[in-house]
Amino acid sequence: MKAKLLLGDSFPEEELKQVTRYADIYRLSEMDDLELDAVLPSIDCVLVLLWPERLNRTRVSKMTKLSLVQSGLAGVNHIPFGDLSREVLVCSNAGGYSDEVGEYAWGLLLAAGKRIVRLDRDVKKTGFKRASTVEVGRDVLILKGKVLGILGYGGIGRTVAKLGKAFGMDVIVFSRRTLEERDIVSLQGRAGLETVLRDCDVLILALPLTKSTKRMIGGTELSMMKRNAVLVNVARAEIIEEETLYRWLVDNKDFIYATDVWWMKEGRESYSPSLPFLNLDNFVGTPHVSGPSAVVGGGPARNAVRNLLRFFRGEELLNVVDRNEYA
Amino acid sequence: MKAKLLLGDSFPEEELKQVTRYADIYRLSEMDDLELDAVLPSIDCVLVLLWPERLNRTRVSKMTKLSLVQSGLAGVNHIPFGDLSREVLVCSNAGGYSDEVGEYAWGLLLAAGKRIVRLDRDVKKTGFKRASTVEVGRDVLILKGKVLGILGYGGIGRTVAKLGKAFGMDVIVFSRRTLEERDIVSLQGRAGLETVLRDCDVLILALPLTKSTKRMIGGTELSMMKRNAVLVNVARAEIIEEETLYRWLVDNKDFIYATDVWWMKEGRESYSPSLPFLNLDNFVGTPHVSGPSAVVGGGPARNAVRNLLRFFRGEELLNVVDRNEYA
Repeated sequence: MKAKLLLGDSFPEEELKQVTRYADIYRLSEMDDLELDAVLPSIDCVLVLLWPERLNRTRVSKMTKLSLVQSGLAGVNHIPFGDLSREVLVCSNAGGYSDEVGEYAWGLLLAAGKRIVRLDRDVKKTGFKRASTVEVGRDVLILKGKVLGILGYGGIGRTVAKLGKAFGMDVIVFSRRTLEERDIVSLQGRAGLETVLRDCDVLILALPLTKSTKRMIGGTELSMMKRNAVLVNVARAEIIEEETLYRWLVDNKDFIYATDVWWMKEGRESYSPSLPFLNLDNFVGTPHVSGPSAVVGGGPARNAVRNLLRFFRGEELLNVVDRNEYA
Repeated sequence: MKAKLLLGDSFPEEELKQVTRYADIYRLSEMDDLELDAVLPSIDCVLVLLWPERLNRTRVSKMTKLSLVQSGLAGVNHIPFGDLSREVLVCSNAGGYSDEVGEYAWGLLLAAGKRIVRLDRDVKKTGFKRASTVEVGRDVLILKGKVLGILGYGGIGRTVAKLGKAFGMDVIVFSRRTLEERDIVSLQGRAGLETVLRDCDVLILALPLTKSTKRMIGGTELSMMKRNAVLVNVARAEIIEEETLYRWLVDNKDFIYATDVWWMKEGRESYSPSLPFLNLDNFVGTPHVSGPSAVVGGGPARNAVRNLLRFFRGEELLNVVDRNEYA
């Protein structure tokens, strides 16, 4: 008998075609509430990009047969773990975005660190007054020979690290486990984190948002960093304390924050933060396009569906997350 | 007897110290016209960043002993070849800027190709209206698997190519000679140039400005390129026909030009072009900071002085340019 898959978002039909060999697909968008409630008790697995509002606690409790939630996003912080019984496996989509988000992190780093965003704005706004050669060049961050710190070493961290080596940087990583790569230093624990913070010229956040990474970058951590460091965030905004970072950027004009991710307001990312980050010259922000740039190519859908197929075939699942790490 | 070196610009004293073993240094900035004119007939070599206005044709003709002009800039298009007798050797400072300008080219490419400059501006100006995931992500250029074209394969081209391979791109180079690198396709001649133009998703200009490269990118060449290509210029603006490019950008909104170099107005680069490039969303421009970002680190001075020392020691000079290539 075929399994029953509840599909929360539109996914490329090409990928879903493989699923239909093993499962009947119930599309959230094509069912009214009555139809949805009727099918919930027979659902075996759920595939979602963002967790749909309609799948509220009451409805989740009706999915008594549910055994797998496959996230289309790399992170699973959007999954309502509290509503899911402990028997339900939750899989992240780690690896689905590695190339594109890793590239994008480098884009933010270079656009901000080389002062390209600001210089382009200055040229276009006011015309640029030529200063001495040395003055003009001093602000441009040279990467070769500098230290690249990375927090987190999943697929994105790996892509970022590889590019760092190509730029001639020393790469130090804060990771759960010691890495096997010989040319990358990996550090663990609080002491390891502090070493990365102190030594790096550039820090790229590539961690999942979990109970232990939420607000992990606060005043203590920022004050350990170089005053002219570049902090790049392609993970989740909530890893950083918003108010503390704002103050820090105001007080440290040479410190740059470049981000593709934003703090939540009313349940979704807001590109108009509560504090006036957007007025700061040392803030570079883009409206969460790194993930979507991967979605366009179909990689995340392929990756998520590949894991679903493993589930249907009874093979070992990849990217099963430890729910104890989530609220 | 020591040689006599005329120094056109301020250079790091640390580097000049080595020169003083072999030569007396005459600093243009410390001499009035009378003193300058008195010393010109005994000058053996000149070291300049930009060619100084005071060294006009009359004065150049007085340097009857002159045998070497060492440029502090990578390019020598600023050198008044017409005024120099054919016996004078002119050396570029090729290699002195390779790492920094190569990095900067990648900065421009990513800042423009990933739409970071534009997205940051949109977020800050108007607040960003969230479109569908796919719409938002579609504009972001993914580099892995795409074709990187490079015109010119000196030090800068080499750095750019190496990074292109690290990003997983296919690299094709238009160069004078066939390259030995196995993983890079190199093409020569007009047919080679056209292949690079047609095949590339991204084109980086890393050529010297010579008689044959001046205005080499015109309407014919642009129309061979993909309509959504990114053209990056870290060489010299004059390699491209200004009016043609402006028209092209107006007519092809998905084509992006990202540049650190600008067309000349009244003898120097102007960051306010004659045509309203600065109003175009598909134009990204920074005020020639890539070279200065290298100067700050002292690399170009070291490279230039290293060549001067070869001259003083009677060793073979590097980077001697073919004056026939210049006007």
